[in-house]
Amino acid sequence: MTTLRLRLDLAYDGSGFHGWARQHGLRTVQGEIEKALDTVLRVEGSTLTVAGRTDTGVHARGQVAHMDVTSDLLEAAAGRSPDPAPDALARRLNGVLDPDVRIHRLAEAPTGFDARFSAIWRRYAYRIADRPALVDPLTRGHVLAWPRPLDLGAMNEAAAALLGEHDFASFCKKREGATTIRTLLDLGWAREDGVLTATVRADAFCHNMVRSLVGCMIAVGEGRREPAWAASVLAARARDSGVTVVHAHGLTLEEVGYPADDELAEQARVSRTVRTLDR
Amino acid sequence: MTTLRLRLDLAYDGSGFHGWARQHGLRTVQGEIEKALDTVLRVEGSTLTVAGRTDTGVHARGQVAHMDVTSDLLEAAAGRSPDPAPDALARRLNGVLDPDVRIHRLAEAPTGFDARFSAIWRRYAYRIADRPALVDPLTRGHVLAWPRPLDLGAMNEAAAALLGEHDFASFCKKREGATTIRTLLDLGWAREDGVLTATVRADAFCHNMVRSLVGCMIAVGEGRREPAWAASVLAARARDSGVTVVHAHGLTLEEVGYPADDELAEQARVSRTVRTLDR
Repeated sequence: MTTLRLRLDLAYDGSGFHGWARQHGLRTVQGEIEKALDTVLRVEGSTLTVAGRTDTGVHARGQVAHMDVTSDLLEAAAGRSPDPAPDALARRLNGVLDPDVRIHRLAEAPTGFDARFSAIWRRYAYRIADRPALVDPLTRGHVLAWPRPLDLGAMNEAAAALLGEHDFASFCKKREGATTIRTLLDLGWAREDGVLTATVRADAFCHNMVRSLVGCMIAVGEGRREPAWAASVLAARARDSGVTVVHAHGLTLEEVGYPADDELAEQARVSRTVRTLDR
Repeated sequence: MTTLRLRLDLAYDGSGFHGWARQHGLRTVQGEIEKALDTVLRVEGSTLTVAGRTDTGVHARGQVAHMDVTSDLLEAAAGRSPDPAPDALARRLNGVLDPDVRIHRLAEAPTGFDARFSAIWRRYAYRIADRPALVDPLTRGHVLAWPRPLDLGAMNEAAAALLGEHDFASFCKKREGATTIRTLLDLGWAREDGVLTATVRADAFCHNMVRSLVGCMIAVGEGRREPAWAASVLAARARDSGVTVVHAHGLTLEEVGYPADDELAEQARVSRTVRTLDR
């Protein structure tokens, strides 16, 4: 009997979930999928490992998770389907899950793959409709309506100063012993059809980081602060009362990046090491 | 005291409404906006006339309505706002309305304007995700998930045969005495990011017409019928059991077209005349 590692690519509307992580008595994405896995595989205690543990209300279009399963359980779940067993399992899971979460792809993972530790970057989008005349009720679940116009140029100026490897303590919820050093690979705003979209990509994020970065840039976009303020907040390495953590529902995890297959195991080893500025 | 006619451009998520038309005891778009108007204008019995009376569950991005109001009521509602009175009224209405309906624009209408009878066309979109691997939970409220792939080319071939002025009785819910003659100006499908979108534009639509046309074309897209079948259904001028009325939630009223301002009154006069094939 062999054990396989499966990679799941999935999407969800975060509105109806208390975030990703399983919590007793609360509807969470992990909880719902693990329950569906238990049902379809006829087991108890299915466990997923995820790339991005999203908070309550945060959405995902390109979330990645993995799970280990024995080949006999997988074959049994696939039944007599002529399709590959992982495809049949995905179809059965989607049949059991509510439509606010969808498994887009399910496949055997390459050797050394770990959804969390092999990941080299996570890309989020934050969407804001800043023109009341253009707010679209059909997308209000994942686009923040902002009552005042925002200055794209000023926000991009503020963003540019935050790129690179820094201690992002000013934008992180404090957790004892955890590093707040991250490498911000992309941060920029674009406007289309009345919707401002921030692209935020980093090796990893600490808690509340994207929403704090966006809150900082909104203050600049509204003209309440100068673009240079963002860099000074970063340099202070302490939470600033002028930075608000914006609403969760404008935030979507869009994509997770992994290295080439032959680097997955080494990447996972490196990621497990706590980073320090003087590594 | 003068009476003004106001034009309202609005959008709504149809999921939470029993359609446009006011109905006692049910939440409808017309009912909600008229109630908000009564509140803000401090009157009773505000009445809207609409371009497209959408059914339960149907959405709108470009709906148009009009209402008549006396100038003193409008000024009183605007209060001390420095903005034009209609802008101030729109802002107050959006403050009272739930976020699933938004007034995008409110302005004094040109002479002769009638939201319903001056309109020369209505454009709807019908959206279908026919690849389970690409269904996006964030847009599931206005995109129909279809479990089998649809053939774009076959659907467009079927569509082409329906264009022009015809008796669309085969695609209309029968109503005593009402004409079912319409001019279909655009009907075609395009695919983008796993979503098939039908553009459906006509001078006007009879009840269930867009959803029946889409149901007919889905049968063709699935290969259950040949493209030529659509033309034979049309020619029969009678409902065909092979044509299903597809779900409302994939349907969105996108835009309403009006002629130049100096033709609005004449267009309204013409539209009020019941059309016949041999006019």
